[in-house]
Amino acid sequence: MNIKPLGDRVVIKKLEAEEKTKSGIVLPNTAKEKPQMAEVVAVGPTIANDEKKKEEIKVGDRVIFSKFAGTEVKLDGEEYTILKLNDILAVVE
Amino acid sequence: MNIKPLGDRVVIKKLEAEEKTKSGIVLPNTAKEKPQMAEVVAVGPTIANDEKKKEEIKVGDRVIFSKFAGTEVKLDGEEYTILKLNDILAVVE
Amino acid sequence: MNIKPLGDRVVIKKLEAEEKTKSGIVLPNTAKEKPQMAEVVAVGPTIANDEKKKEEIKVGDRVIFSKFAGTEVKLDGEEYTILKLNDILAVVE
Amino acid sequence: MNIKPLGDRVVIKKLEAEEKTKSGIVLPNTAKEKPQMAEVVAVGPTIANDEKKKEEIKVGDRVIFSKFAGTEVKLDGEEYTILKLNDILAVVE
Amino acid sequence: MNIKPLGDRVVIKKLEAEEKTKSGIVLPNTAKEKPQMAEVVAVGPTIANDEKKKEEIKVGDRVIFSKFAGTEVKLDGEEYTILKLNDILAVVE
Amino acid sequence: MNIKPLGDRVVIKKLEAEEKTKSGIVLPNTAKEKPQMAEVVAVGPTIANDEKKKEEIKVGDRVIFSKFAGTEVKLDGEEYTILKLNDILAVVE
Amino acid sequence: MNIKPLGDRVVIKKLEAEEKTKSGIVLPNTAKEKPQMAEVVAVGPTIANDEKKKEEIKVGDRVIFSKFAGTEVKLDGEEYTILKLNDILAVVE
Repeated sequence: MNIKPLGDRVVIKKLEAEEKTKSGIVLPNTAKEKPQMAEVVAVGPTIANDEKKKEEIKVGDRVIFSKFAGTEVKLDGEEYTILKLNDILAVVE
Repeated sequence: MNIKPLGDRVVIKKLEAEEKTKSGIVLPNTAKEKPQMAEVVAVGPTIANDEKKKEEIKVGDRVIFSKFAGTEVKLDGEEYTILKLNDILAVVE
Repeated sequence: MNIKPLGDRVVIKKLEAEEKTKSGIVLPNTAKEKPQMAEVVAVGPTIANDEKKKEEIKVGDRVIFSKFAGTEVKLDGEEYTILKLNDILAVVE
Repeated sequence: MNIKPLGDRVVIKKLEAEEKTKSGIVLPNTAKEKPQMAEVVAVGPTIANDEKKKEEIKVGDRVIFSKFAGTEVKLDGEEYTILKLNDILAVVE
Repeated sequence: MNIKPLGDRVVIKKLEAEEKTKSGIVLPNTAKEKPQMAEVVAVGPTIANDEKKKEEIKVGDRVIFSKFAGTEVKLDGEEYTILKLNDILAVVE
Repeated sequence: MNIKPLGDRVVIKKLEAEEKTKSGIVLPNTAKEKPQMAEVVAVGPTIANDEKKKEEIKVGDRVIFSKFAGTEVKLDGEEYTILKLNDILAVVE
Repeated sequence: MNIKPLGDRVVIKKLEAEEKTKSGIVLPNTAKEKPQMAEVVAVGPTIANDEKKKEEIKVGDRVIFSKFAGTEVKLDGEEYTILKLNDILAVVE
């Protein structure tokens, strides 16, 4: 099964805490709007067809996003989040 | 009888829970804005006449949409929801 | 007497319940924003002069609209509603 | 004395109830946003200089407008209302 | 001393009640947003450099404006109000 | 040390009361949004590079601004305010 | 590890109080929206690819920003803030 986000939306899969620690990122507990780390699973056509935007973010990227953004869905037993590109703050390499 | 949505609206028919399970999607009960799965019944002319938008979504597609979006109508004994394209999050194949 | 809506407004005349039943549409009682069915009596010049918009809606069309939209007026003993094109959700044929 | 509205504003003079009855319009008492009938006294330059807008409304037209829109002024003993073109719903002929 | 409003702002000097009466304008006490009459003292460069806007309003014009709009300043013992052009409703001749 | 405001921001230094009195300006105590007088210390590049805007305001100008606009900073012992050009109402000469 | 902000975002690292004092900036305790000083660590592609914006701000610049803007993240043990360019008020040299 395949999920294709519409417009400038992105589908991400949240990384577990241990993965975050391994990658060297620790997110503070006290921040009012806690950022989270995730991996990009799919990008919408508005991103894929935009020369500049598709350079900024692509499938497989590890990203920091706003915790309260987006909608969570469960697909084939896996949990994903669908959000707008604008709710993704940065790519971490 | 035929229903033609105006502008960038879409008419969808919600899928029953069992259909969702068969298709492998399970939606969480606790999400604040619960997404739902549905089948596209009709798309408005703004979508049908836009080369890019009509590639993104078409009649028969299975889509995930925001639960609280749109207006419900009953037509010839069937229930439909009319919403804006922007309230549809993703197409699932 | 003649009523000419300004801009992108539309004048509609609500259909009685029995008419709705005959046409096969039954509207739910519980919906928070109950849609209603009506017949288009006049369209504003922004619609009449727009090639695309005038194909979407014209005098005589039966439409579903948002219940709380628009302003009601009584003209020559008949009740009409004046609303924006954007508050009309779909045309039913 | 002469009053010239700025921009897309219109100056109107409300019609008395008896005039409304004579013209066949009766406005409901219960509507939350009661429409009213008036005669156009002056239109602003944005309307007068726009080929399309000046066809829609001109001095002398009888119009229906939103009751709570606009500002009332008394000029040479006469009461007028200054409002935006967008607050005028329709012209009645 | 000279005051030059920025952008599309206008500097006005309110007319006293007796002046208003002499000019034939009486403003109602009960209006929620009481209009007021004033004389234009200076107009900003966005107005002065716009062919259409400078025809609508110029220094010396008597205008009706929204009471709660603008900022009051005292300059060389005189009180002025600085407001946006959009808060001026009409010019009275 | 040098402070360079970004975009269409302006850095101003408030004038003391005695300076205001000397320059002939007295600001009312009762105004809800008290205007204040200040001297322009720096303008952002959006202003400096715009032919029209840089004629309206420049370093050294005495300006009236909205009291509650902007952010105060202390730099080398001096207090400054950084605000948007749009929060400056007028230049006084 | 490398953090790349998206769009017009900027990654900054807050300067300690002692650093601020050394650089001559003291920020008031009472300001409702306390500004803060920081060093720019990375700028997004919308800034880097814009001839004018990249002249205004670059990596290494010391900047004053709105305290409540942005999202804090910890990366490899260091704390950073990701915010929009528009939340940076000025560059201090």
